[in-house]
Amino acid sequence: MIQHSFASDNYAGAHPEVLAAVADANAGHVSAYGADPVTAEAVRLFRRHLGEHVEVAMVFNGTGANVVGLGLLLRPWQHVLCARSAHIAVDEGGAPERVLGVKLVDLDTPDGKLTPDLLRSAAVATGSEHNTQPGAVSISQSTELGTCYTPEEIRALADVAHGLGLYLHMDGARVANAAASLGVSLREITTDCGVDVLSFGGTKNGGLGAEAVVVLRAELVEPLRFVRKQVMQLGSKMRFLSAQFVALLREDLWYRNAAHANAMAARLHDAVLDAPGLVVTRPRQANVVFATVPAAAIEPLQQASPFYEWDPVTHEVRWMCSWDTTEAHVDAFAAAVHAVLGDLAAPSRRQPAGLPA
Amino acid sequence: MIQHSFASDNYAGAHPEVLAAVADANAGHVSAYGADPVTAEAVRLFRRHLGEHVEVAMVFNGTGANVVGLGLLLRPWQHVLCARSAHIAVDEGGAPERVLGVKLVDLDTPDGKLTPDLLRSAAVATGSEHNTQPGAVSISQSTELGTCYTPEEIRALADVAHGLGLYLHMDGARVANAAASLGVSLREITTDCGVDVLSFGGTKNGGLGAEAVVVLRAELVEPLRFVRKQVMQLGSKMRFLSAQFVALLREDLWYRNAAHANAMAARLHDAVLDAPGLVVTRPRQANVVFATVPAAAIEPLQQASPFYEWDPVTHEVRWMCSWDTTEAHVDAFAAAVHAVLGDLAAPSRRQPAGLPA
Amino acid sequence: MIQHSFASDNYAGAHPEVLAAVADANAGHVSAYGADPVTAEAVRLFRRHLGEHVEVAMVFNGTGANVVGLGLLLRPWQHVLCARSAHIAVDEGGAPERVLGVKLVDLDTPDGKLTPDLLRSAAVATGSEHNTQPGAVSISQSTELGTCYTPEEIRALADVAHGLGLYLHMDGARVANAAASLGVSLREITTDCGVDVLSFGGTKNGGLGAEAVVVLRAELVEPLRFVRKQVMQLGSKMRFLSAQFVALLREDLWYRNAAHANAMAARLHDAVLDAPGLVVTRPRQANVVFATVPAAAIEPLQQASPFYEWDPVTHEVRWMCSWDTTEAHVDAFAAAVHAVLGDLAAPSRRQPAGLPA
Amino acid sequence: MIQHSFASDNYAGAHPEVLAAVADANAGHVSAYGADPVTAEAVRLFRRHLGEHVEVAMVFNGTGANVVGLGLLLRPWQHVLCARSAHIAVDEGGAPERVLGVKLVDLDTPDGKLTPDLLRSAAVATGSEHNTQPGAVSISQSTELGTCYTPEEIRALADVAHGLGLYLHMDGARVANAAASLGVSLREITTDCGVDVLSFGGTKNGGLGAEAVVVLRAELVEPLRFVRKQVMQLGSKMRFLSAQFVALLREDLWYRNAAHANAMAARLHDAVLDAPGLVVTRPRQANVVFATVPAAAIEPLQQASPFYEWDPVTHEVRWMCSWDTTEAHVDAFAAAVHAVLGDLAAPSRRQPAGLPA
Repeated sequence: MIQHSFASDNYAGAHPEVLAAVADANAGHVSAYGADPVTAEAVRLFRRHLGEHVEVAMVFNGTGANVVGLGLLLRPWQHVLCARSAHIAVDEGGAPERVLGVKLVDLDTPDGKLTPDLLRSAAVATGSEHNTQPGAVSISQSTELGTCYTPEEIRALADVAHGLGLYLHMDGARVANAAASLGVSLREITTDCGVDVLSFGGTKNGGLGAEAVVVLRAELVEPLRFVRKQVMQLGSKMRFLSAQFVALLREDLWYRNAAHANAMAARLHDAVLDAPGLVVTRPRQANVVFATVPAAAIEPLQQASPFYEWDPVTHEVRWMCSWDTTEAHVDAFAAAVHAVLGDLAAPSRRQPAGLPA
Repeated sequence: MIQHSFASDNYAGAHPEVLAAVADANAGHVSAYGADPVTAEAVRLFRRHLGEHVEVAMVFNGTGANVVGLGLLLRPWQHVLCARSAHIAVDEGGAPERVLGVKLVDLDTPDGKLTPDLLRSAAVATGSEHNTQPGAVSISQSTELGTCYTPEEIRALADVAHGLGLYLHMDGARVANAAASLGVSLREITTDCGVDVLSFGGTKNGGLGAEAVVVLRAELVEPLRFVRKQVMQLGSKMRFLSAQFVALLREDLWYRNAAHANAMAARLHDAVLDAPGLVVTRPRQANVVFATVPAAAIEPLQQASPFYEWDPVTHEVRWMCSWDTTEAHVDAFAAAVHAVLGDLAAPSRRQPAGLPA
Repeated sequence: MIQHSFASDNYAGAHPEVLAAVADANAGHVSAYGADPVTAEAVRLFRRHLGEHVEVAMVFNGTGANVVGLGLLLRPWQHVLCARSAHIAVDEGGAPERVLGVKLVDLDTPDGKLTPDLLRSAAVATGSEHNTQPGAVSISQSTELGTCYTPEEIRALADVAHGLGLYLHMDGARVANAAASLGVSLREITTDCGVDVLSFGGTKNGGLGAEAVVVLRAELVEPLRFVRKQVMQLGSKMRFLSAQFVALLREDLWYRNAAHANAMAARLHDAVLDAPGLVVTRPRQANVVFATVPAAAIEPLQQASPFYEWDPVTHEVRWMCSWDTTEAHVDAFAAAVHAVLGDLAAPSRRQPAGLPA
Repeated sequence: MIQHSFASDNYAGAHPEVLAAVADANAGHVSAYGADPVTAEAVRLFRRHLGEHVEVAMVFNGTGANVVGLGLLLRPWQHVLCARSAHIAVDEGGAPERVLGVKLVDLDTPDGKLTPDLLRSAAVATGSEHNTQPGAVSISQSTELGTCYTPEEIRALADVAHGLGLYLHMDGARVANAAASLGVSLREITTDCGVDVLSFGGTKNGGLGAEAVVVLRAELVEPLRFVRKQVMQLGSKMRFLSAQFVALLREDLWYRNAAHANAMAARLHDAVLDAPGLVVTRPRQANVVFATVPAAAIEPLQQASPFYEWDPVTHEVRWMCSWDTTEAHVDAFAAAVHAVLGDLAAPSRRQPAGLPA
């Protein structure tokens, strides 16, 4: 066990209210595979947040949610357009290609965000069977780089996508962080913007391990349960997945956890901004700070608190905050940043070896 | 919520010790994806039970465990031999075919159990590229029909399989029930019998939802982590999967839960054996009783306690006991069986309507 | 080179008219991938034979035709029902499972033919995501066992299939032989009977190597070209595939070749029927004779003319005739059969060694 | 029929010697699926050209050859590195992703050619299961842009690839054109440079339609026949595929056809180089000329002889020569180019409408 880390919001445990909800759900017998009252309640809550018409399928993890969701959207000869930095492109072990047989077309972006112009120039439907045809666009909210799409940006992408006959998929592993960062409801950046299928993240938001595929368009509902089962994302004791969403969604725990993690990242960002030799590299919007630091600083800082070196060439580091990151964690780490970087920047460090300090 | 049911051991919740272990694991930050102390402890316990050389990968559900396991064993042009009643053949929504692209060759068995003779006659390696070639045998322990393989039977199958160049896979969603029924250790029906890959069931044994792929043969270890990830069975907050196995395996909870469920099935079996019109159809070995009853009895009995009609043609029913089934549950249901069947068998029932009884 | 064999209609070469049509097509430049006049002519001829509304895609081989055709009919969680002896089940190296990810449900049949009753009892749509759902029925015409479905039998299967919401696929690698055997047009056993997709065999009918996927139902046309390309069955110099069908279909070459092969099988059947120790095992309907012979006869007969032992347990042999089998080939082989079997049956063979005959 | 076109070497027919070899092969019965003397001769010839140790599998088309070849090289979680312009990335309808479940990592190149530096920076084996791992590099010889790798360049790529534990695959749909352009033997740019698997193109080299997968490394041979069958590339009347290679390889037809097509492209290149408004955009090395022309020239030129506009934005056109392109075809088309472009460039074209010339 580590006291705390800035490595990933996956390093945090579950929020006590989530664990309590799971314990509460553990009473007596209920039907398996989702025909239980806890799941019914979770679905009711998803509908309250996202619209009465949505359909929801609880799944195990983010890769599963994305594969189920994309599986609803694509015909076999169609491809997905996504940012080159997208989780589906980089961090899912080739699951979309392997399980769905689908091609991803990765687009370069400065900040992890697709734009209408990018989409229009890349989504070329040749109509020829020699080429795969575009079938869907996938965006991440918030992105892997901690940036968020505004509602207007999502709506503009949805309009372009729909105008081209493409569906819009949102990987919302951190959609709660995005909503909290933007100060909007979950619905305002999903249903109301024309998103067709959403991967809704529970794990990083304080869960034990639960994600949901939310289908926002009626025509896509029918295959949902078959695809979920076939790609091995149907849990038998479903109530324990659903209970996590009940805890997160019944009041404002989803928001409290996300807003808190975001605030801790903001605090860290502000505290280290003027550290010598540190350059913040991405706009701080969700629960993460990206910065470059001198190479020699990385190891000492990781000893203060574990984190990932995001880019070993530029020495860009990623410091991610969680629902359980405290002000004290942030302040202690910021102090370490200042100490380590200050020390590296001190004149004595730059003296030729062998000379008296 | 239902008070109790005989529908499935998936209808039961989690054992309190499992839930407590999950809560205990929820402290501070740990590395994600399995590099955490709880997972290390779970792996240590698996090794204590199954052999120091085994490798273990926690996964989400039984379909996932079976697909990961079979994925380690088969080349693309090879097929799996299994009983026609096997879970992989019937109840996994086509996941093996879809995700692995593999053919299953289903063999008829009277009791869900393969035999060396069946295997020898069915495992024909033509060597021709026109035919898929046998690559693995998959057996279920206990079977879908509640029967168990003895250690000698498994060893005999392993010998035939290995002699034919095939691997032996065991779907052990209820391997704990089998070991308890046979009065042997887990190792005596797996490692010691020549099983190559085992799906180890935690969910039905009192878990919240956790299974494990146990690799018993060194040459199969290397691809394990890549296959698990690619088929979407890698949990980020792994400690919460692993904690369930820590609870089940650290002392004898796995055994207590399984032996208790088996004992309740035995009690039910004995209590209903002489009910009029009821015929027990399968040897009662694990935690389930199969019997045929008059069609008219099914609905009234399901009102007493939910269960599945296994075969709508023969009116065979399945009554499954769980770790939390009590003697009172069994006795009440057995009384209902006698009452309903007795009533159906009573002479007054067969009197023409309108006549005085 | 072998003079002639009864091993397979794949051992025969191409009919001279087919070769001539290919040579005729080899003039100047034409558009690749099917936008050429030879292909247009082939499509026109298919429409004349099978209906003006059909769509046609020339492909390379029978496995390709079946995979493309089934790929049009199935959703990912659906299975195909077929005879256990079907080519797709036995002889396609697992291509349907691998390339389409689809499950085949094999049904036992005495003669390679499905029946409405078989279909009704096997095509169980549970509606549950735990089970794959039936999506299509595939029949072979003529079957692997040389039997043919009558138009009435196909219509009855189509009615049952469509009534159950299933498509009807026909593997017509030898559909020409079936039509010739039944004395009907190609249309009478396909379009007019409710077949939805047909694999039309050109190779065994005297081609160099060409098959066609014929889509008989409008709703299935749109994905045809994408599926053909994606499963690697789109030929660039398409005219040379199409020219083969022009030769076969423009007059009655398809019929002459098929009827001749059938007639040679009939001649062989009649000539060997009374050979001692030989038992014909299947009704002779298309271009093949199945019979059991004494084990000791097989090798000497294979030296007279190569053929396959179909079942090494029962010593059932398969003698297949081709478009180029001559009466002389048949008569010489029938004579060999009588000679070898007569010799085996002669009393002297059964005398103890060393005694005077 | 078109007299001649510069659209594609797929628009050309088959060389008469190829057709004659096919006709020659059409005598009597031979074993199907490759156990025939024509195939044995083709394999012998491949070995003479490429090395006695190679294994060869004739297949139907280029996509099939590439998918079979890559299928030999990759484990499920590995990806292929290739140029963004590669045929496998752009023009195979997603077959590699769909049939193999494999990810392609496309690299930007100025001229369609990978370099050791590109490879070293892109072939990052993280070793983490979250990322697909590099398994093979695929290069095209000649490339889609008509450029050729020198033997030294291929050797350098092979060295880097092998040093990184990757296989080297060559898409040689036009490998004959490359060898002829470089003035080397087929072996000098394949076997001798460390290529592991080669797609050898027969179709564009004057065939009717035939490609070959050539395996140059012993460890990859065993799965070859199973993979070919399973991905539907096994022809039954194999002799007719093999005969095409016998014609191309037994003497120097492969070279004559390729060298002639190259020479015609060189002649065209030289003849149009100084046409007004035309800019050659790629080094002319194989049998194709790329150039930009004024947009208004494209349609009139396509009426002179069909060709493809390669890039509708820059108005880059592709003029491809075939084994049957004649000097007269080239000269007539070059004259048309000069006429059309000259007319467009003439001062009268630029005068305002309505003024006297």
